[in-house]
Amino acid sequence: MTGLRTMLNPKVTAVVGVSTSNPFSPGNVIFRKLAFENGLRTYPINPKGGFVEGVEVYRSISEAPDDIDLVVISVPANYVAGVLKECGEKRIKAVIVVSGGFSEVGHEGIKLQAEIIDIANQYGISMVGPNCIGVYVPEMLDTFFLPSERVARPRKGHAAIISQSGGWLIERLEEFADRRVGIAAAISIGNQAQTKVTDFIEYFGNDNNVNVILCYIEGFGEGEGREFVKACRKIVTKKPVVVLKGGESEAGHRATQSHTSSLAGDQAVAGAAFTQFGVIHAKDEDEVMAYANIFSYKPKFMMSNRIGALTVSGGHGVIASDEASGYGLEFPPFSEDEQRMMREVMTPAYQGIASFRNPCDLTGSASDIDYEKVLDKMLTIDNIDAGLLLLLPYAPGISLQIGARVANVAKQHTKTVVAYVPDLDKYEVITRGFELNGIAVADTIEEAVQMLNGIRQRTKFLQRIGAA
Amino acid sequence: MTGLRTMLNPKVTAVVGVSTSNPFSPGNVIFRKLAFENGLRTYPINPKGGFVEGVEVYRSISEAPDDIDLVVISVPANYVAGVLKECGEKRIKAVIVVSGGFSEVGHEGIKLQAEIIDIANQYGISMVGPNCIGVYVPEMLDTFFLPSERVARPRKGHAAIISQSGGWLIERLEEFADRRVGIAAAISIGNQAQTKVTDFIEYFGNDNNVNVILCYIEGFGEGEGREFVKACRKIVTKKPVVVLKGGESEAGHRATQSHTSSLAGDQAVAGAAFTQFGVIHAKDEDEVMAYANIFSYKPKFMMSNRIGALTVSGGHGVIASDEASGYGLEFPPFSEDEQRMMREVMTPAYQGIASFRNPCDLTGSASDIDYEKVLDKMLTIDNIDAGLLLLLPYAPGISLQIGARVANVAKQHTKTVVAYVPDLDKYEVITRGFELNGIAVADTIEEAVQMLNGIRQRTKFLQRIGAA
Repeated sequence: MTGLRTMLNPKVTAVVGVSTSNPFSPGNVIFRKLAFENGLRTYPINPKGGFVEGVEVYRSISEAPDDIDLVVISVPANYVAGVLKECGEKRIKAVIVVSGGFSEVGHEGIKLQAEIIDIANQYGISMVGPNCIGVYVPEMLDTFFLPSERVARPRKGHAAIISQSGGWLIERLEEFADRRVGIAAAISIGNQAQTKVTDFIEYFGNDNNVNVILCYIEGFGEGEGREFVKACRKIVTKKPVVVLKGGESEAGHRATQSHTSSLAGDQAVAGAAFTQFGVIHAKDEDEVMAYANIFSYKPKFMMSNRIGALTVSGGHGVIASDEASGYGLEFPPFSEDEQRMMREVMTPAYQGIASFRNPCDLTGSASDIDYEKVLDKMLTIDNIDAGLLLLLPYAPGISLQIGARVANVAKQHTKTVVAYVPDLDKYEVITRGFELNGIAVADTIEEAVQMLNGIRQRTKFLQRIGAA
Repeated sequence: MTGLRTMLNPKVTAVVGVSTSNPFSPGNVIFRKLAFENGLRTYPINPKGGFVEGVEVYRSISEAPDDIDLVVISVPANYVAGVLKECGEKRIKAVIVVSGGFSEVGHEGIKLQAEIIDIANQYGISMVGPNCIGVYVPEMLDTFFLPSERVARPRKGHAAIISQSGGWLIERLEEFADRRVGIAAAISIGNQAQTKVTDFIEYFGNDNNVNVILCYIEGFGEGEGREFVKACRKIVTKKPVVVLKGGESEAGHRATQSHTSSLAGDQAVAGAAFTQFGVIHAKDEDEVMAYANIFSYKPKFMMSNRIGALTVSGGHGVIASDEASGYGLEFPPFSEDEQRMMREVMTPAYQGIASFRNPCDLTGSASDIDYEKVLDKMLTIDNIDAGLLLLLPYAPGISLQIGARVANVAKQHTKTVVAYVPDLDKYEVITRGFELNGIAVADTIEEAVQMLNGIRQRTKFLQRIGAA
């Protein structure tokens, strides 16, 4: 644990494998980021010495100063063990091995991997990798060997991501940046030779800044699946863990064999065990995004599956009903009294054409103030435990202020509200109005329903164990 | 049919229900668009006369000139029948009624609706609506009563869209514009009092500019479901018809009752009949988009469900395998010989780390030329009928030219190729490179798989009836 804390909060770093001739080598990219973007004291290492970006290169870890917290190793596989030993001798506690050529390439690599695990264990080094793209902690640390102009970096926030696939992780970072969902840390776990996903579950479980942990997992080694769900179960009352499992189909599983060579060992444990231990099982990347987004807000529990929906378009109400139904969520029809209560606060001219059965369809004639007033009434209805806003800003009566206006109404109530706003630049003011006032915004109807499903799934588990 | 042709290709139009005092009334918005955006000779009509935007207002259709092709009616429901009669007396063949207040509001409205159907039939008028937002034909006609600055309009292209929900249609237009998928026409069918979805299926079926017809349907009147699938069946060898059915769940169906009051009549006919008659049944808006996109290109048939996949990230190969498996599509493992054939053309330094089993993972070290050469070989493999490219441009060796470069390789072959590129502005050059060279680009892995599924579904039906 100390090793991981040091790894993610280093003061001084070293990069083994910089090139004095190729400024675009992975080692050089990493060196520049650590030294100049993160502003960390960083020692470049290459047996030949010389200079990189005007900084003197040390010939080895041994010759470098003694204050190193984290070493990133980017040298051919057969040199890694030697470097790791030097790190151990120097009592360095955290190492990231980005080099490939280990268990993923077969026999010879498996031997090399066993060797570096032994060395890391022997010296008490926390080692992430090999065959990973590194770790990213906003405003602190970025060891990804991809140039910054190629990959967007999300802002600092409350979601931690751990991935067995570097490509998958990078794509999530782009998406999080695009959706303005902040992250606490992103970990490319690679072959997880020594440090496992489970270690990071424990670490982020105890990090109060992390509100949700997201994992992409292709497979577990023998017995590791059970360790994983047990670790999740320990922290689940504090925060949700969301898992997307790659290779769940037979074809997908076959594909993992060429990728991470994950053992089939605990494959079967996945689905059922996830539910049993309170892990939220995402079916695809869209669900991962939906859960990351909503759980970043620490949403209130949903004690039942019943939701009130408010829309400007009947068609959207129909589609949301179908989607909700698919997730076992319900829009209970409102009673005559409840309908009257909402109808009465609406602009008189449109009371006759609006529908309040649930979904409530205020029609394209409604204005901001109708949404405010009807939502304010709807959220007092005992029979629902959440609100869903399907907000199409095409109607002439809807202004760009509607996000903030409606969010401020929602704030006065104790029920979770999520909003759908079409994902278009011109509506960013609306989306920001919601988000800055604590309401998560989905960019598809389905995502809004998935968000509510995530909350309901989590609440249901916590109810079952008596924690909600 | 003549009526619909006139409706969608008018030379002269009239708008009944402009206001001389409120420039933002629906009638005025429509008038401005027809007169100034579409540049059509357009007569504004209001019993009080006067001027609108400097144009003289006629007091009635009867008083207006005789050369009118299309009348758009936007007056309160109880005035519509009178206006319609005047249109009939003037032998006007095409009318769009945007006014609400008909069958969707119950008893009184149902009577009014029956009355206008009778008048339209009696005079041989093709009437779209009531309770619709209008029609849009790029570069020709735009009767939507939403101001242009509120809703994006897609470019001219080959997809026709017919929708029972105006809100749903508007959102598709925004999405099509955003994704650069062109449309031939967009029809808000409203209550489909007289002109039905089926009439437009027949119309667009005979329009050689239309490559795919997309429908959002909440319900059919008694017997209309069968008429609909029969009409689809008649044109299905020429072009695919894609249907998203709203209200398929019980909850969703209940919601349609407050929206379009569609009869449950032919509800049961839907699912099974769609398959039997060769209609492609989309499960959500994402599938609608995927099918619209791919079928706009008139893709080659996929005689089997077997696909070759090429990626830069093992994780993406795994996820694509899972997705494909869910759609009954297959990435058959390549033989040793086939693998060797591809490996040999790859840059020697990376031959050892790349995997060619299918999905082929060229790894983050591969360059544009590796993709070109490997794809060129892969598409010669007899065992596959399509190619799937999962293109993550994060890898340093991939340039912005890769889209055009790889598309030009695909062009030399007879198999359909679709590409996935992350949906980010910075990659637009890549996406355009594909699209301008005839390769459809998906913005999620799932969408790419859905595209292939659409082609395969269509081909399978055509094989069954001996047409492929």
